[in-house]
Amino acid sequence: MKKAVLVIFDRFTDVDVFLPWDLLNRIKYREPDFTVKLVGTAASHRSSSGIDIATQGSIEECNSADLVFFASGIGTRELIKDDTYLKRFQLDPQKQLICSMCSGALIIAALGHLQGLSATTYPTAFEKLRYYGVEVIEDKHLVTEGNIATAAGCLAAVDLVGWAIEKMYYSKLKEDIIASVLPVGQGQSCIY
Amino acid sequence: MKKAVLVIFDRFTDVDVFLPWDLLNRIKYREPDFTVKLVGTAASHRSSSGIDIATQGSIEECNSADLVFFASGIGTRELIKDDTYLKRFQLDPQKQLICSMCSGALIIAALGHLQGLSATTYPTAFEKLRYYGVEVIEDKHLVTEGNIATAAGCLAAVDLVGWAIEKMYYSKLKEDIIASVLPVGQGQSCIY
Repeated sequence: MKKAVLVIFDRFTDVDVFLPWDLLNRIKYREPDFTVKLVGTAASHRSSSGIDIATQGSIEECNSADLVFFASGIGTRELIKDDTYLKRFQLDPQKQLICSMCSGALIIAALGHLQGLSATTYPTAFEKLRYYGVEVIEDKHLVTEGNIATAAGCLAAVDLVGWAIEKMYYSKLKEDIIASVLPVGQGQSCIY
Repeated sequence: MKKAVLVIFDRFTDVDVFLPWDLLNRIKYREPDFTVKLVGTAASHRSSSGIDIATQGSIEECNSADLVFFASGIGTRELIKDDTYLKRFQLDPQKQLICSMCSGALIIAALGHLQGLSATTYPTAFEKLRYYGVEVIEDKHLVTEGNIATAAGCLAAVDLVGWAIEKMYYSKLKEDIIASVLPVGQGQSCIY
């Protein structure tokens, strides 16, 4: 039984939560034991557009998850300066998959897991990411380093989640889930 | 000042609300007077994945909107049989833009606005859409008929919202918003 958590916070970028969220939930059509939760520091978090989303677990759930997925958004800039927040994470990239969309890479870097490694992020966060000793790849939408994958540009979430699905399960499941969200006439195929 | 409404309901498909929602909210970076609201029949609606989202207005707001955007999801199958629900809409495709993602086309059809016209929808809804006298185009992800546009396959939302932005504003705004969500290295360009 695999468990994923999607880390949200105030001022998250809407699509960078909900596109991965929807894709990850589709795993359940084939693997009913899979669980995915939205986790955060409060009972709910407000998106950049002003939508309130309830969390389903605390940050500590990250420490036992198979996949820890960091959302993005302007809210990351405060979190990376918050030692109390960062100390709640005890991640192990040897045993866990760790993913980020856009500026979510800043949190992985602030936790010390990207030092000396390459990563990508949203262009507005390139400089901040370099501050953590990361080799920023400015022209790739998906950069992987072992069990860590960073993606940039909202629609890159499709390939990022696909990478995580293949790592957790198998390539056919990745292909089927991606096909289920493609435009009709462009390879779209229903999964349910 | 343009106003858009995104119609949600219980058992909506998460990404078919939040991808359009995020894209539409990006209009505000260039057109601060633009408003977009999630509207429905209750104070909140629950998505297919189990997330509760508060509505920001009632169905009647559709009748004065410049853009009425129908989300999709299994919940549409009940709504198209609900006369009380359908009667709350007084849409005018001569004056308003009307869009749907996937099975949202069933609601536009049930309202009588697609009779004798062509449209697209999610493959699982092809037959139901034909029942309303619609010519279903099975291999196109975006079908337009005057001010009505139907799209199918979650990622088709990008082109669908792009169509609506160009109709409401201008093509450069459409291009800038789409560029802002493209994967980095694939034409991505920040809008803020």
